[in-house]
Amino acid sequence: MVTPYNLDQAIRKVPDFPKPGILFYDITGILQNPTAFNYCIDAMVEQYKDKKIDAVAAVEARGFLFSAPFAARMQIPQVLVRKAGKLPGETKEKRFALEYGEDVIQIHTSDVKPDTNVLLIDDLIATGGTLKAAAELISEIGGRVEDIFCVIGLPFLNYAEQLSDYRITTLINYDAE
Amino acid sequence: MVTPYNLDQAIRKVPDFPKPGILFYDITGILQNPTAFNYCIDAMVEQYKDKKIDAVAAVEARGFLFSAPFAARMQIPQVLVRKAGKLPGETKEKRFALEYGEDVIQIHTSDVKPDTNVLLIDDLIATGGTLKAAAELISEIGGRVEDIFCVIGLPFLNYAEQLSDYRITTLINYDAE
Repeated sequence: MVTPYNLDQAIRKVPDFPKPGILFYDITGILQNPTAFNYCIDAMVEQYKDKKIDAVAAVEARGFLFSAPFAARMQIPQVLVRKAGKLPGETKEKRFALEYGEDVIQIHTSDVKPDTNVLLIDDLIATGGTLKAAAELISEIGGRVEDIFCVIGLPFLNYAEQLSDYRITTLINYDAE
Repeated sequence: MVTPYNLDQAIRKVPDFPKPGILFYDITGILQNPTAFNYCIDAMVEQYKDKKIDAVAAVEARGFLFSAPFAARMQIPQVLVRKAGKLPGETKEKRFALEYGEDVIQIHTSDVKPDTNVLLIDDLIATGGTLKAAAELISEIGGRVEDIFCVIGLPFLNYAEQLSDYRITTLINYDAE
């Protein structure tokens, strides 16, 4: 059983970051609060402990903060989804569109084992562009994305549409301001 | 008690990364191996459980992988040391020299509480430039750097000289090739 916790009180809302008009939901407030942080990890374990999850994949850098404690508790391997040029081994990469321009993510090909169930993790899901690219990359290497987990969801930015092929679990959702 | 583990076998050595002549010690091998990863976290808890550590500060991005599970176990707050432009709140920053050029790190000023003992964490320590800048930044905001912890140490790159004001703990050290 997970002790209920009102996560909203631990999430900082920062207006106009990273640019005017954007309200940024900042998980560093969760990190500052051990009760809030352990609630997140406990809730993740509770959600997935009876499912067949063989590995976690986490999106750089804030995703690491939630995937690593979860992986330690579940005793499963971790796969890093990183920006180009950060991973030293043989990688497979995916280019994807951002609002302005594009970005590239990479995964060590040897880190995703064929025919394994992977839980894909990030701190927050908005449009879902990065997570979609990561999920496709995991599939291309041979893994199965069993679920996508994010602490915070912003459903008004329509991630559900872009990620309609995947199950998505969040701990707290926010509506448009 | 921590079950001993030969961490060397889990660390990938990648020659010529990020540039020719550099042997890169890659912790993604540890992440792939739950026994190795949990050994690291257990060893950190064993090392610090009886010391007065009020918070951890971790260097982006690989430092997060070790600080987050440790903070969850110790139930203490986490402070992020990030590259410029990543933290949404009020930050203090420090500019420091790299081999070529310079870099800037930032910390949320409100996240380091005055008169607290902070454990500074990264995955690997080489010249110690980034960790020295992070330690100075924590001191300037009002915290005390109680210890610096890294999984891997490369003492031949002389971090001990640059960080002579601090205690440094590592789990494994490598000599020059």
